[in-house]
Amino acid sequence: MKTRIGILGYGNLGRGTEIAVAAAEDMELAAVFTRRDPAGVKIITEGVPVVSVNEIEQWKDKIDVLILCGGSATDLPVQTPRYAALFNVIDSFDTHARIPEHFANVDAAAKASGHIGMISVGWDPGLFSLNRVYANAILPDGKDYTFWGKGVSQGHSDAVRRIDGVKNAKQYTIPVEAALEAVRSGEDPELSTRDKHLRECFVVAEEGADKARIEKEIKEMPNYFADYNTIVHFIDEDEFKKNHSGMAHGGFVFRSGKTGVNKENKHIIEYRLTLDSNPEFTTSVLVAYARAAKRMYDEGQRGCKTVLDVPPAYLCTQSGDELRAHLL
Amino acid sequence: MKTRIGILGYGNLGRGTEIAVAAAEDMELAAVFTRRDPAGVKIITEGVPVVSVNEIEQWKDKIDVLILCGGSATDLPVQTPRYAALFNVIDSFDTHARIPEHFANVDAAAKASGHIGMISVGWDPGLFSLNRVYANAILPDGKDYTFWGKGVSQGHSDAVRRIDGVKNAKQYTIPVEAALEAVRSGEDPELSTRDKHLRECFVVAEEGADKARIEKEIKEMPNYFADYNTIVHFIDEDEFKKNHSGMAHGGFVFRSGKTGVNKENKHIIEYRLTLDSNPEFTTSVLVAYARAAKRMYDEGQRGCKTVLDVPPAYLCTQSGDELRAHLL
Repeated sequence: MKTRIGILGYGNLGRGTEIAVAAAEDMELAAVFTRRDPAGVKIITEGVPVVSVNEIEQWKDKIDVLILCGGSATDLPVQTPRYAALFNVIDSFDTHARIPEHFANVDAAAKASGHIGMISVGWDPGLFSLNRVYANAILPDGKDYTFWGKGVSQGHSDAVRRIDGVKNAKQYTIPVEAALEAVRSGEDPELSTRDKHLRECFVVAEEGADKARIEKEIKEMPNYFADYNTIVHFIDEDEFKKNHSGMAHGGFVFRSGKTGVNKENKHIIEYRLTLDSNPEFTTSVLVAYARAAKRMYDEGQRGCKTVLDVPPAYLCTQSGDELRAHLL
Repeated sequence: MKTRIGILGYGNLGRGTEIAVAAAEDMELAAVFTRRDPAGVKIITEGVPVVSVNEIEQWKDKIDVLILCGGSATDLPVQTPRYAALFNVIDSFDTHARIPEHFANVDAAAKASGHIGMISVGWDPGLFSLNRVYANAILPDGKDYTFWGKGVSQGHSDAVRRIDGVKNAKQYTIPVEAALEAVRSGEDPELSTRDKHLRECFVVAEEGADKARIEKEIKEMPNYFADYNTIVHFIDEDEFKKNHSGMAHGGFVFRSGKTGVNKENKHIIEYRLTLDSNPEFTTSVLVAYARAAKRMYDEGQRGCKTVLDVPPAYLCTQSGDELRAHLL
């Protein structure tokens, strides 16, 4: 029997999840739940109902794992514990500083109802976290580096859009090539914020706006830009739509560590992602972990879990024998 | 109480394990077991006994995990099942084709005696396997590439040394830069054996040997060299000792996969290791997994396990709370 997946929220993540579920031969999409009027939500998969979230309780026994596709700022802190009372749930909560609090809330709800609640699944947190943990366990004497990009930062794009005279804007976070090379070569550099990432902004200004003033406001914006080298380009609406609608992203996790009686041997572990579509990759990770959530639930495990708690084999459709024969 | 580690076999892997255990604050080395005369084996750690393997049974209750540091060809197929009858054991068995058979033998022995037997721990198999499994689960529609090097192949070095007139030899396996770039760029190239790796040999010839004949014999050797572009250098004994005694190695695992309604989005996952000391890195992995073996045993798990069965958090000294707060 296939694992029955529900999706809550049908934005970029919901749509990405739908595509990833369709590509998984052991899963089927049971329903998409929305806070909008279901009549106005058109999904890709034929024959699958779009249902108002108000009716979600009726689906309690028809869904094995509910994948929560809301945002980390306001949706998931409420939704994940709430729906862990009814379903096995999984989310991509990515506010690193609030993970311990979110974990505690989801753990309490999932244990009370007897479900699995898997949180912070994606690539950072998610695959990047895995790589930090493996590398730290293996090379206890070392240094970690994480770089993001090249990719769009939603928060920084929003900050630029809030500037007076800005009609539209996109901000790319770009790792500095010289910093990557210094880490890769084993130099263990001390890198400032400015050393690690560049920020590049593509801005559509309002008719007659003072571009010099906008550029100055961007470059001097505290927290967001002041500590970085920032490049600002003014472009027109057409170019913006044509060249800056993509959702590519990626990044690097490094650990550089030493071993030896006199710490004379250096080792570099590098993990790199180059992604055409941030939401589609994130949801591909979510769907693999939904498979694991179902397995852990079937084994009798309960409560909140993260990627750090999941044996890698649980993500796979293949049996242990197949994995050992072909991928080990 | 610290986890008590035993080491069986004191070559490069045994010595690397000893160094990694010394760097692990939650572990202590209980004893080193050897097939040689213990009086002739000098270890680094003071106050730790070197014991004949014939007396190993007396250590049954004094060791939590025995780390097997023998070779995959003849030692481990016998040792791992044998000592799983007495101890939790862990090995770095790396003959990929024989893993299913080794797994079955160790599983039977470890289940019969009520222990954990963890096999094929290191970087390939090991960390490379993990990366293949994670990446395949996340991107089911894709292509895998593994490259090794730059590093020494023991098997190829041995093959060159068997040629008449060769006094000493070292063979480096080198990934072809153009192939790496083609994979990294998302071209999904079809790569022949020759396209992926170069072989470079440093040979010390016997006095008066026919170097042209040796070079020809190397380059035409079936299985080992005939399918590769091979570079042969003749050097003297001094240069050999000075520049070719290292044990550096490394490699790359890539998966290139597609997502999207029309498979229009490409994603590249790259994992790269650059290692000054192959044995010291391998044993750093072994020691982290010895920690996990102890935990799984304490939880009541039994039988043969591989890296695919181990939750990443089990490798770490930190608690779940600490890991979620700092590394997730």
